[in-house]
Amino acid sequence: MSQSSLPRKDLFDLPKGVIYLDGNSLGPLPKGAVERVSEAMRAEWGGELIKAWNSAGWMDLPRVVGDRIGELIGAPAGSVATGDTLSIKVYQALAAALKIRPDRRVILSDNGNFPSDLYMAEGLVGLLGQGYELRAPDPEAVAEAITDEVAVVMLTQVDYRTGRMHDMNAITKLAHDAGAVMIWDLAHSAGAVPVDMTGSNAEFAVGCSYKYLNGGPGAPAFIYARPDIVQDVQPALSGWLGHDAPFAMERHYRPAMSTERLRVGTPPILQLTVLQQALTAWDGVDMADLRAASLALTDRFIVEIEARCPQLELATPRDGAIRGSQVSFKFEHGYAAIQALIDRGVIGDFRAPDIMRFGFTPLYIDEGDVIAAAEIIEDVIGNALWRDEKYQTRSRVT
Amino acid sequence: MSQSSLPRKDLFDLPKGVIYLDGNSLGPLPKGAVERVSEAMRAEWGGELIKAWNSAGWMDLPRVVGDRIGELIGAPAGSVATGDTLSIKVYQALAAALKIRPDRRVILSDNGNFPSDLYMAEGLVGLLGQGYELRAPDPEAVAEAITDEVAVVMLTQVDYRTGRMHDMNAITKLAHDAGAVMIWDLAHSAGAVPVDMTGSNAEFAVGCSYKYLNGGPGAPAFIYARPDIVQDVQPALSGWLGHDAPFAMERHYRPAMSTERLRVGTPPILQLTVLQQALTAWDGVDMADLRAASLALTDRFIVEIEARCPQLELATPRDGAIRGSQVSFKFEHGYAAIQALIDRGVIGDFRAPDIMRFGFTPLYIDEGDVIAAAEIIEDVIGNALWRDEKYQTRSRVT
Repeated sequence: MSQSSLPRKDLFDLPKGVIYLDGNSLGPLPKGAVERVSEAMRAEWGGELIKAWNSAGWMDLPRVVGDRIGELIGAPAGSVATGDTLSIKVYQALAAALKIRPDRRVILSDNGNFPSDLYMAEGLVGLLGQGYELRAPDPEAVAEAITDEVAVVMLTQVDYRTGRMHDMNAITKLAHDAGAVMIWDLAHSAGAVPVDMTGSNAEFAVGCSYKYLNGGPGAPAFIYARPDIVQDVQPALSGWLGHDAPFAMERHYRPAMSTERLRVGTPPILQLTVLQQALTAWDGVDMADLRAASLALTDRFIVEIEARCPQLELATPRDGAIRGSQVSFKFEHGYAAIQALIDRGVIGDFRAPDIMRFGFTPLYIDEGDVIAAAEIIEDVIGNALWRDEKYQTRSRVT
Repeated sequence: MSQSSLPRKDLFDLPKGVIYLDGNSLGPLPKGAVERVSEAMRAEWGGELIKAWNSAGWMDLPRVVGDRIGELIGAPAGSVATGDTLSIKVYQALAAALKIRPDRRVILSDNGNFPSDLYMAEGLVGLLGQGYELRAPDPEAVAEAITDEVAVVMLTQVDYRTGRMHDMNAITKLAHDAGAVMIWDLAHSAGAVPVDMTGSNAEFAVGCSYKYLNGGPGAPAFIYARPDIVQDVQPALSGWLGHDAPFAMERHYRPAMSTERLRVGTPPILQLTVLQQALTAWDGVDMADLRAASLALTDRFIVEIEARCPQLELATPRDGAIRGSQVSFKFEHGYAAIQALIDRGVIGDFRAPDIMRFGFTPLYIDEGDVIAAAEIIEDVIGNALWRDEKYQTRSRVT
């Protein structure tokens, strides 16, 4: 398929007058999603009631949706389970990894990882005691920190603030050479950059579906386990839907013989239904085309902003090979500047302490959007429009 | 409010020709739910995009919905957090309880508890090692098993198979007298029987919202923590939305100073929106009226079935004081009989090994439904209509 299949703006309900550069935080509403979930609620829930678990395929929906996500991250059918939140999936992967290396006590991450990943690791370490610890050096120092003390390396491939991308295959190999288990968080990778889970040889991956996959607010997370190890995974969150025979109501947990063992409780059917519809936007998209389009957009944005706004400092790698699908700039008054931009129809977001973040999603963003956004950013920064009092008050979600 | 406010059938979209006695498994579609979630998707997600976390109140929705559930279970505002699945909430409560009693190693439940509650305890015990164990005696033997070895007592108030109800206040007192922490699973209690969490003095309660609360398939779960202990709760699942300042993106987890610390990841906004609409069906309902209506329905059903179907053995307590809002009968051919009933418009369900289960939900079930259902059950059992070959094949979800 040629790159001309992108963008596909007609597949999304984007508000008029808005340039949406925050699909890396929450993707926009896919067309057909309202109709699909309305139909599921009326015909399946309303019409079939409890029978819909069978008749409408609800019980299999987590696997069906997982398989579709698997295609986007280079994972084989049956290797991806969906449900819960990304934080829960991080915990599942970490707990399972520690059981694979019970002789070691160190979880290694980096301090640029998304806070919740680090917090979940802290919670697990706090629960376990027994000398378990989390180490989180600078991202650049991770490679040398992979020692034979490390049980598990858990990293987010694309840094949520800077967009800097770890080398998945190289770090996985370092981890394995040191005898550690590898977990990749694909929150800013799935649907953003080509991912080849099989080729990476990593044991686990986790991710969310409300960013580049456009599954909507609170859309379910996913977890991948390498097929050759899944039957050795001991689920810490051993819920009934990970049981080999959930409805046999057996007294003891007996895990399913596949990635299904990483399911936990009753799946969020309505959110999964929306996500399933959202994923149809990927039909026929070649991830190499997507990557080429993404790099063209982020390259152009960097050039435009650096030429127009010398006050901003690029925080994203200039080298496209280690850049995700976002561009960030440091600016002391970044919070106010983002508010001023939103007020003018350019939606990016702010990440503490000083990051202005812009996501580029080739499904619905094109070069015209980049130029139009750059002009508005130039106006806001060059004319210090962010100084207006109304942009200084912080909202709860920033 | 008088009992005449029940039923409220006009608040639900119930299929014609169906008597739905399975609202204890999945409540029916509330009127207005499709419209509400469609509006939220179009105007909030589609129209506001990322801004909706503030402008549409998404970030506070778990607490707002939790407060409404709190009213139904006798819990004060701010003491109930929503999100995740019930299995996850069981794990959170168990892990927190064990940290409150670090000197003890025994989790006590009963073998009539819902399997997932026991499985989650098994998973936690397996993760912790160090001599932790789960004990699950017969429900009748729980009281005497509460010894000074027990760190936490974790019980489902209403047995999912038999409908037998534990005495919440009495068992909580026994647990506390023995120095143990008390967790109640309210899966078959919330919206089914009057619950007074404050009066019980129990430390934790958990529950789901897709049964008597009609939140839809995969609706979020809830967790209650007693306000005077919540600041001592150490969350094992320490996700960013339980952080005191999630968007400060601090390096270390620092729990919120309220039940909010039992939030974990990004909340399932679309399912919460449906649930919020569903909960409006409870406006103006007095739980004492609901209980009176429930007992009238279950009493009448027992009388009718015992008179009509001597082949069935009552599995539910005859004493209404220890009965939830369901009636179960044992029948060797229960699976096929339930299929034959569903084929004739009476929807109950089967629970292994031999339980035919019927839920009575006074919001939308009345005496006429009980009589009509009893007539059809008499036909199916008395004339052995369940012998038909087509009722013998088991579906995955039974």
